Amino acid sequence: MSTNRKIRMGMVGGGQGAFIGAVHRIAAAIDQQIELVCGAFSTKPEICKATGEELHLPAERSYISFTEMMEKEAALPLGERMDFVVIVTPNHVHFSAAKAALEAGFHVLSDKPATLNHAEAVELKKIVEKTGLLYGLSYTYTGYPMVKQAKHMVANGDLGKIRKVIVEYPQGYLATKLEDTGMKQAEWRTDPKRSGVAGCIGDIGSHCENLAEYITGQEINELAADLTSFVDGRMLDDDGNILLRFGNGAKGILHASQISVGEENNLNIRVYGEKGGLEWHQKEPNTLIVKHIDQPDQLYRTGNSYICEAAANVTRTPAAHPEGYLEAFANIYLAFSQHVIDRLNGTEKANYDYSDIDAGIRGMAFIEASVKSSQANAAWTKL
Amino acid sequence: MSTNRKIRMGMVGGGQGAFIGAVHRIAAAIDQQIELVCGAFSTKPEICKATGEELHLPAERSYISFTEMMEKEAALPLGERMDFVVIVTPNHVHFSAAKAALEAGFHVLSDKPATLNHAEAVELKKIVEKTGLLYGLSYTYTGYPMVKQAKHMVANGDLGKIRKVIVEYPQGYLATKLEDTGMKQAEWRTDPKRSGVAGCIGDIGSHCENLAEYITGQEINELAADLTSFVDGRMLDDDGNILLRFGNGAKGILHASQISVGEENNLNIRVYGEKGGLEWHQKEPNTLIVKHIDQPDQLYRTGNSYICEAAANVTRTPAAHPEGYLEAFANIYLAFSQHVIDRLNGTEKANYDYSDIDAGIRGMAFIEASVKSSQANAAWTKL
Amino acid sequence: MSTNRKIRMGMVGGGQGAFIGAVHRIAAAIDQQIELVCGAFSTKPEICKATGEELHLPAERSYISFTEMMEKEAALPLGERMDFVVIVTPNHVHFSAAKAALEAGFHVLSDKPATLNHAEAVELKKIVEKTGLLYGLSYTYTGYPMVKQAKHMVANGDLGKIRKVIVEYPQGYLATKLEDTGMKQAEWRTDPKRSGVAGCIGDIGSHCENLAEYITGQEINELAADLTSFVDGRMLDDDGNILLRFGNGAKGILHASQISVGEENNLNIRVYGEKGGLEWHQKEPNTLIVKHIDQPDQLYRTGNSYICEAAANVTRTPAAHPEGYLEAFANIYLAFSQHVIDRLNGTEKANYDYSDIDAGIRGMAFIEASVKSSQANAAWTKL
Amino acid sequence: MSTNRKIRMGMVGGGQGAFIGAVHRIAAAIDQQIELVCGAFSTKPEICKATGEELHLPAERSYISFTEMMEKEAALPLGERMDFVVIVTPNHVHFSAAKAALEAGFHVLSDKPATLNHAEAVELKKIVEKTGLLYGLSYTYTGYPMVKQAKHMVANGDLGKIRKVIVEYPQGYLATKLEDTGMKQAEWRTDPKRSGVAGCIGDIGSHCENLAEYITGQEINELAADLTSFVDGRMLDDDGNILLRFGNGAKGILHASQISVGEENNLNIRVYGEKGGLEWHQKEPNTLIVKHIDQPDQLYRTGNSYICEAAANVTRTPAAHPEGYLEAFANIYLAFSQHVIDRLNGTEKANYDYSDIDAGIRGMAFIEASVKSSQANAAWTKL
Repeated sequence: MSTNRKIRMGMVGGGQGAFIGAVHRIAAAIDQQIELVCGAFSTKPEICKATGEELHLPAERSYISFTEMMEKEAALPLGERMDFVVIVTPNHVHFSAAKAALEAGFHVLSDKPATLNHAEAVELKKIVEKTGLLYGLSYTYTGYPMVKQAKHMVANGDLGKIRKVIVEYPQGYLATKLEDTGMKQAEWRTDPKRSGVAGCIGDIGSHCENLAEYITGQEINELAADLTSFVDGRMLDDDGNILLRFGNGAKGILHASQISVGEENNLNIRVYGEKGGLEWHQKEPNTLIVKHIDQPDQLYRTGNSYICEAAANVTRTPAAHPEGYLEAFANIYLAFSQHVIDRLNGTEKANYDYSDIDAGIRGMAFIEASVKSSQANAAWTKL
Repeated sequence: MSTNRKIRMGMVGGGQGAFIGAVHRIAAAIDQQIELVCGAFSTKPEICKATGEELHLPAERSYISFTEMMEKEAALPLGERMDFVVIVTPNHVHFSAAKAALEAGFHVLSDKPATLNHAEAVELKKIVEKTGLLYGLSYTYTGYPMVKQAKHMVANGDLGKIRKVIVEYPQGYLATKLEDTGMKQAEWRTDPKRSGVAGCIGDIGSHCENLAEYITGQEINELAADLTSFVDGRMLDDDGNILLRFGNGAKGILHASQISVGEENNLNIRVYGEKGGLEWHQKEPNTLIVKHIDQPDQLYRTGNSYICEAAANVTRTPAAHPEGYLEAFANIYLAFSQHVIDRLNGTEKANYDYSDIDAGIRGMAFIEASVKSSQANAAWTKL
Repeated sequence: MSTNRKIRMGMVGGGQGAFIGAVHRIAAAIDQQIELVCGAFSTKPEICKATGEELHLPAERSYISFTEMMEKEAALPLGERMDFVVIVTPNHVHFSAAKAALEAGFHVLSDKPATLNHAEAVELKKIVEKTGLLYGLSYTYTGYPMVKQAKHMVANGDLGKIRKVIVEYPQGYLATKLEDTGMKQAEWRTDPKRSGVAGCIGDIGSHCENLAEYITGQEINELAADLTSFVDGRMLDDDGNILLRFGNGAKGILHASQISVGEENNLNIRVYGEKGGLEWHQKEPNTLIVKHIDQPDQLYRTGNSYICEAAANVTRTPAAHPEGYLEAFANIYLAFSQHVIDRLNGTEKANYDYSDIDAGIRGMAFIEASVKSSQANAAWTKL
Repeated sequence: MSTNRKIRMGMVGGGQGAFIGAVHRIAAAIDQQIELVCGAFSTKPEICKATGEELHLPAERSYISFTEMMEKEAALPLGERMDFVVIVTPNHVHFSAAKAALEAGFHVLSDKPATLNHAEAVELKKIVEKTGLLYGLSYTYTGYPMVKQAKHMVANGDLGKIRKVIVEYPQGYLATKLEDTGMKQAEWRTDPKRSGVAGCIGDIGSHCENLAEYITGQEINELAADLTSFVDGRMLDDDGNILLRFGNGAKGILHASQISVGEENNLNIRVYGEKGGLEWHQKEPNTLIVKHIDQPDQLYRTGNSYICEAAANVTRTPAAHPEGYLEAFANIYLAFSQHVIDRLNGTEKANYDYSDIDAGIRGMAFIEASVKSSQANAAWTKL
């Protein structure tokens, strides 16, 4: 940046008691290029205030609504006002907060999924285009170095033409009716009003979709989904099994679950091409297993000299000390904030490695196609 | 056995150059209760003769056809003639050989799948019932001690009501057109005349079906299958992705592949119930991962004191030395030959732990339903 | 803190091109309670300046020596001046920088080992005691939640009396003469003037010693060490094999290596008591394997409800997303900065979970005993 | 064999209730080239008889002592009498049984260790040389295909000059005083009269020694051992930590334990050379991890086309189905019986891949050096 300063971030959501807001703040802090300068952390004024104090913000920049935040920040001079807004609310607020931020002139980094439904996402794209501002989505798992290595190897043709993709995300935390116990996360994620038409498939199935498309560079053309709500009285799906067909002729399986007892965040992907295969597990994210015809499997590991540039650039610990989820998350911030900096300095490049509104639209299309297919007894449904 | 002798086995198929015949002979030999006394190893007389010599058989008991074998063996006195026939030919011979053996008065242990198609399997059941003789199928993987432990824990209610099953069998050995290179295994397995209507799904998908039903004690009610032949010019499927619905309301996924480069025999199963989960990998078959709500995963291991009786009974190496595929295979022989012995001695029990003709019929129903579903664009199809 | 502000940190060392300084800055940033306010980053003024700019520091707080830093910061008012100094230089500077900081009235957090030799560490303890200020050491690996869980279980008697400890830290990065290629890290770490009497054993063997004593709560009484310098012309050991005897009668093995080709930072520890065992691998740091007599192994995982308080308190990602080295490092900062805050607020507790000068003295005693033992052909040597 | 028949085996020891005898019989049976024709299974006549019946032996070939067996078998014609004797008694009988067999004209395959002490082993070598007969030892773990692959890669120079070896064998089964509970195995193995001067180190430490020397082709020159008997009242060591120095300048660590709670037969070895490294775990014996400088680790797996001839020759299951301990054991029989066959046929080759009396002598030297070193407070002791 020609003017040597940190990028300034304002946050919508993430008040005391929330989960993902704190994760975003850590991710933003890790590389010390971003400063949290203001927030509208909650719909409850007392939580806004308490959160702001805990975060060492000046009282006047703890706003009680995102509307107030956009208005007052926009009135501050550049370099003092926030440079971008991060949105970490439940899904139903994503659209309105993003719209408000963009229309007030602020770049937006939003938690995924982009919006509550597909129509909102399409509408949001128009706003992004109209304002010409930056819009990013925190599909966290694409931030892992070994996911970038996987994408690189597919793009480089190391696997040959892709034939098969298996992507899965089992969790077990909703195996019982947790939403009745007062657990906030479980409450809104199982509530159609705040979560959207899908539960498990919207929350974590969409990560599978994004990860598979990111690594393979192929789009899912159609799917056949069998979604289930196993826990009595639950309003949204807590499990989904999906057949996939990709644009290039590849086939695949996507399954996600929140009732798979004992599973934590067991996101995995396997990709097979004509010449080779790849396997990656979030549980041990610093290893990428690379498979060959008639040659031994290889274990690619972060932090080694043979790793591709895209992965090496987002590795902070030389010599292969394990990095984790927070660093993957920070890598989203790294890419997005670099874009903001380059925009400020007039030095923009053609590409930045974060998910944009098009990925957001695809995510919503995936979610809606899954629900529609399942309602039609797993009929093939186009995205 | 009141008359203290080994059980006598005759073999159909398994001549020099074959694969699974040698595996069967090792499996039969391991526990030293079975003696190979004769064979009709090939359709080629010279291979019959050479194989018999290599196996130290007397020349007069190396037959040139199973017809000859049944006839001549039946003429020998009990205790000298074979007690049972094992059939290790390509699929298209299974039915006729089994029929001939049963009708000549011999018990039959057959390699899976039971027959070339479902109609033959149904017909075979009638013959089994009519003759009153024993009929077993070598679904090898159910022979593993930890698979028996898994079955035990489900039956015991340790997992609660079963909700989800994921079973998969990726291989990579047919990623290229191996059948054009003269490789015998690849040749007949990709030939509809000898293999049946399915390739990959018949060969290894059927193991998934059998394993899932064996462990869960639930039947697959219907399925939606997307089968593919990825390699140009291949006549049968080399990959399949299948959605499952079980009788008790459980859902599942079954996928099998022979084009997943780098995969060997990576058969895996995961089962989740309301209270717990199980995970087993053939690659490391002596470990069963047991999952709980809010408790650490446990690693059950063969050869330990806490293992269930069914698993302990088929473990040969105290103190947890690794057992493998051949011991799992031997466990099928152990159960079947014990049944033969008890029949001979008039001490039959109610149950023996090997797959019977009903399992064979289910296997053929699964294969045909998969093909039919796939031809109807993955329409739900009853078994 | 009664006055709601971040704790202010000054850094000695860590200029552009250094390794561990950047890691410290990330670790300090993660929890957003610490602010870097000044630094003396290098012995080269131009690097001091450039680093300060890169880190967005005001020019007047980029000092050209730690002497200048102590003097000028001490002149600033409390709340503006730095609250503590972190020392991230090569080993030979640790003592003089820590001494200067303490005598200028600043708390100190130092990279390990504490000093260049044992005598300096003993001297440093006197200074710490005289000044009454806080002194901490960044033995990073004790920051991992599962290491804290291990310590908790031993202290709680879950393993019974400890009998055996195996701790190992193989690396491979010095398998060739890297110090001749201009690689800065390799240079100073193989130079006795800057590294001390030991190479590998001082650098990573000392982590083994610290980890083993931290988890078991037992001190190593004596050791028999066989140190080797395998690479021709290398001035310090690059490999060491050591027999251990602990105060309570436990025996053990410690080995560390920098010539174990292909190993990254493969720090592992296994502890066995009369009733149970523990196993932890830094490569997969979120899992602790717990072993029992005649019961299955259990896999304890970070972020779950059954984890002890000490581990839960330093876990940032609920639901068991993987945390890594940087979070472990941040946990040292978390404990130390909490101590600084509590000191400021007059609310000090009896214990804080970071390594102090006594651990530093033990580390130096271990290093010197290892070298002495090895020079005496692995004679038993007391610490 | 020009005369097409199975090789005939007589067994000393292995009566009902014994452990390793049954394992030997399975191992001998697997490849169907060996026939058990007689035995002297116990010192108790009634157990001799019962065991013979259970094994379907004719009553007249169930002998009541090995003396009787040698005498009566020697009187039978070649081709009817046994071809070799396998000795599966506790250690204190190994020498006298082997001596009797050799002097009666029979080849010998013995369970390890060769004898009760080093002097007996040296004496036995003289008898072997005098008789000119074959003598083999069942060091089981060298039978694993991936161990042979490891040996091949070291011999081939793939790792460069060997620098470091870590070999370990932790068990937990003697963590309590099992020998007081009537458990036969535990009884004799902790009894100096039957086991020899060492317990754990003789039983499993000697496997480590053999494995390390087999793979590296280097001899241990000297060692420093710290042996312990942790369980009160136990007469022999149940744990040992040993520093190693090899002939070529390599250093190493060997530790074995029978009080490491929760460990089964966790034999592992890691070997590092100037250019590469190897890692093998008996728990997952079909994988060999191969390490490189600045290249990803590779996973070599049994049954693949890239495996060396020595490993491929002892793999029975194409396509990488898991083989285990019994197959490894069978590979010892495979090599030894091939030698017997070739001797019978006059077609002996220069080398056969099984451990001979020289390996037996080294094993006894290792055991005695370990005990002597430990008694001298871990003084360096030559083998």
